Amino acid sequence: MGSLPLDAPVQPLDPEAFASDSRAVVDFLAEYYRDVDKYPVRAADLEPGRLRKLLPDSAPEHGEPLEDVLEDVRRDILPGLTHWQSPSFFAYFPMNASTAGFAGEMLSVGLNVVPFLWAASPAAAELEGVVVDWMGRLLGLPSRLLFSGGGGGVLQGSTCEAVVCTLAAARDRALAKLGHEAIMKLVVYTSDQTHATFQKGARLVGIPPSNFRVIPTSAASGYGLTADAVRAAVDRDVASGLVPLYLCATVGTTGLGAVDPVRELGEAARRHGMWLHVDAAYAGSAAICPEFQGYLDGAELADSVSMNPHKWFLTNMDCCCLWVASPRDLTSALSTDPEYLKNVGTNGTGKPAAIDYKDWQISLSRRFRAIKLWVVLRRYGAVGLRAHIRRHVTAAKWFERSVAADERFEVVVPRRFSLVCFRLRERFVGDDAVDDVNRELLAAVNESGRAFMTHFVVDGKFVIRLAIGGASTELRHVMDVWELLQAKAEEVLQRYQL
Amino acid sequence: MGSLPLDAPVQPLDPEAFASDSRAVVDFLAEYYRDVDKYPVRAADLEPGRLRKLLPDSAPEHGEPLEDVLEDVRRDILPGLTHWQSPSFFAYFPMNASTAGFAGEMLSVGLNVVPFLWAASPAAAELEGVVVDWMGRLLGLPSRLLFSGGGGGVLQGSTCEAVVCTLAAARDRALAKLGHEAIMKLVVYTSDQTHATFQKGARLVGIPPSNFRVIPTSAASGYGLTADAVRAAVDRDVASGLVPLYLCATVGTTGLGAVDPVRELGEAARRHGMWLHVDAAYAGSAAICPEFQGYLDGAELADSVSMNPHKWFLTNMDCCCLWVASPRDLTSALSTDPEYLKNVGTNGTGKPAAIDYKDWQISLSRRFRAIKLWVVLRRYGAVGLRAHIRRHVTAAKWFERSVAADERFEVVVPRRFSLVCFRLRERFVGDDAVDDVNRELLAAVNESGRAFMTHFVVDGKFVIRLAIGGASTELRHVMDVWELLQAKAEEVLQRYQL
Repeated sequence: MGSLPLDAPVQPLDPEAFASDSRAVVDFLAEYYRDVDKYPVRAADLEPGRLRKLLPDSAPEHGEPLEDVLEDVRRDILPGLTHWQSPSFFAYFPMNASTAGFAGEMLSVGLNVVPFLWAASPAAAELEGVVVDWMGRLLGLPSRLLFSGGGGGVLQGSTCEAVVCTLAAARDRALAKLGHEAIMKLVVYTSDQTHATFQKGARLVGIPPSNFRVIPTSAASGYGLTADAVRAAVDRDVASGLVPLYLCATVGTTGLGAVDPVRELGEAARRHGMWLHVDAAYAGSAAICPEFQGYLDGAELADSVSMNPHKWFLTNMDCCCLWVASPRDLTSALSTDPEYLKNVGTNGTGKPAAIDYKDWQISLSRRFRAIKLWVVLRRYGAVGLRAHIRRHVTAAKWFERSVAADERFEVVVPRRFSLVCFRLRERFVGDDAVDDVNRELLAAVNESGRAFMTHFVVDGKFVIRLAIGGASTELRHVMDVWELLQAKAEEVLQRYQL
Repeated sequence: MGSLPLDAPVQPLDPEAFASDSRAVVDFLAEYYRDVDKYPVRAADLEPGRLRKLLPDSAPEHGEPLEDVLEDVRRDILPGLTHWQSPSFFAYFPMNASTAGFAGEMLSVGLNVVPFLWAASPAAAELEGVVVDWMGRLLGLPSRLLFSGGGGGVLQGSTCEAVVCTLAAARDRALAKLGHEAIMKLVVYTSDQTHATFQKGARLVGIPPSNFRVIPTSAASGYGLTADAVRAAVDRDVASGLVPLYLCATVGTTGLGAVDPVRELGEAARRHGMWLHVDAAYAGSAAICPEFQGYLDGAELADSVSMNPHKWFLTNMDCCCLWVASPRDLTSALSTDPEYLKNVGTNGTGKPAAIDYKDWQISLSRRFRAIKLWVVLRRYGAVGLRAHIRRHVTAAKWFERSVAADERFEVVVPRRFSLVCFRLRERFVGDDAVDDVNRELLAAVNESGRAFMTHFVVDGKFVIRLAIGGASTELRHVMDVWELLQAKAEEVLQRYQL
């Protein structure tokens, strides 16, 4: 296999050894993809600490052959993983791997350049600018969020990072006028459906935890945040001398896939001088299909928009697009300019478009993520990517209809994308037991190893989520999981009806 | 090549297409490593905007074959990159790629699991705990920073992220006692050699910019921060009613490779109840060699320590080890517990060691970095990794001696690791011109394309940095760059002596 002889002088990038080891890993992964649906999606009976017991306490003194390492992965690690690439993984949100995403990531990892300054790898920084514009156009974003329209974008690792950066930008924009002590007065608004990362992010940037508002939503608005509710909350805070800072509108919430009305919320945000962030982490991918772009209507009122190609867009972890209308707000909060990062002969030339992306994110160092997303877009094209999205939406519609047609079940909120939220009805088990029976149903399905789903709680109800979107997930896998759910429901209901 | 036929139904993880495309990328990268020293290390004459002109404005409608994409990488992208994997890349700090790092990253990217919760991939979360303990032992860290000793570690993407997390932990530990409004009183202490990321991080977590102290260092202490200077600054602040929060000790500063005295600073931090962070981003890798472990003496007084395997430890981007003495401090500041992340049947069992790493970092989602670092440690072993470090230290010693033996040059600060800081002496060109002549020397070397170095300014002097540590960099490359420097120095000095 051309592995490194033990204790040979290390030649870390010898091309022959690189090629032979890398091919062995490719073969290992191809075999994994061939067999991934044979593993329990999530191993049911794992004890915490299992792996630690299997491994030695210290790193080896001497190097070991690759085949030994891969054998240990096969024997010790694979059985302890939750298999996110299984076609029957329906938990959380999908986290797509793909052949093109992998190829792009290999290029990023192999070239291993660090486009933190333009000069530190010009083509890498520029490709990022091109690719975020491409993505923005595919999603139908307004031009003011694109470089071509005076805004711009960056590829970060996660929505959480993007949120922290936009919160810091909004905060510093406000504090520049009000003075730093006004940090005690700044208020962040979200709904009870907004992702927890906004609360974590607000706390991280120093917003007092008591100034984080979680505004209730209800079934009446499909669990979307209404502008009326925002206005009421803002008015109360303004009357108490607080300063509205930041409002989040989510397109496709994590729990239910709900959608906040972007335009209405944008208008409310404008009225009070708040930063509007649109979080389309999951559902943003769907907006490459014209039939979903309406959900982003009003995005021209946003200060920032983010979505994750690493969820449902065939782009392996990690990749989050963040667009901002005013790059200066971002760089004002995040720039550094120490001596060792100044470029002799390149800075101060006043040339356009030389972006130092370190000033657009938390970290200085950064991956060449642009090449990954670029390879995905090139290999699959808009047509292929739309087909990928639509096959899952079609499967979700089929599942939603099947659930609705079974009198034991109910769909809890109308499906908008590829997430279906459902449960066993209370009239089959009674009000007291309904949460327990759904909890048992979910546990039974997950323990079977044949599928993995997660849950949510809304209006006090325990709800099962089927998040369709795995790279290999097809209609037949959704049909299988429906059959499994029906069988397990029968078993669970029998226990309750005894 | 088995590429996806245009507009075929997307089968993103078809094993045969995956294997054939991935092998083509492996071959592409092997060829790149074979030829990387033929590229100019940094293209000298690039105009910002060059790549944007070459690429279309929009993503393609239809998918394209992989060979076309790779051809575009070869033609449009490679010539515009700065080649961090060139053996003649001596800028910033090294950013190692390696065959093992690449193999580990392929496994991470291919399995594409997300160990944010233990249950979301148990073996991935557990491997991380094992590997950070392995690393801590290799570096000779005190057991209180390891899981086995009550502390623990996490793999993050960068020092910057680690710094933000530790600053937030220190802040929230203090504010829990003092109330949130005391955020206006918290003070962070660094030296004038500390990395700019601490200033950025302090600002990000809401510390008032006026409460960020940059304490001067001098040649007398080798540009290390003295405990006396810290005490004086702290006393002034305490007298003004401020609250000392956080002190950074750097082992191997970015500008000069200087070392702060960890034990002394740790004692000063203890006295004032400050959080001590030890930043060994670059030089931490050297501490796997016993002859460098003395620099970490006193680490048992630290609240946190970080180092980057992605710099000089043969681990491709990105990977930063962060160890903390009290994981609870970290998780108190960073935890979230929304309903959709609770695990039916796994939470609340009180079992040990089931770590939810989302509460140890900024982001919720995260890569399976542990398998990458684990493959590096397994493949090269401690012996191979020490050899990797020592060959660069040996080359740096050779370069330092060569510079010292040439009367035109001077070594500006004593070398401690593999970074040599030097310049042309002023007596050869006069006091006024010495910075210009060194600037010209650096520009001439970089424009030749045969090496790439960066600079620093200390005590007002412009200094050239030769950071040795590239995965493929051997003594002969350092000899070549010394020859190049001598030749360019001759040319530059001649111009000044006319």
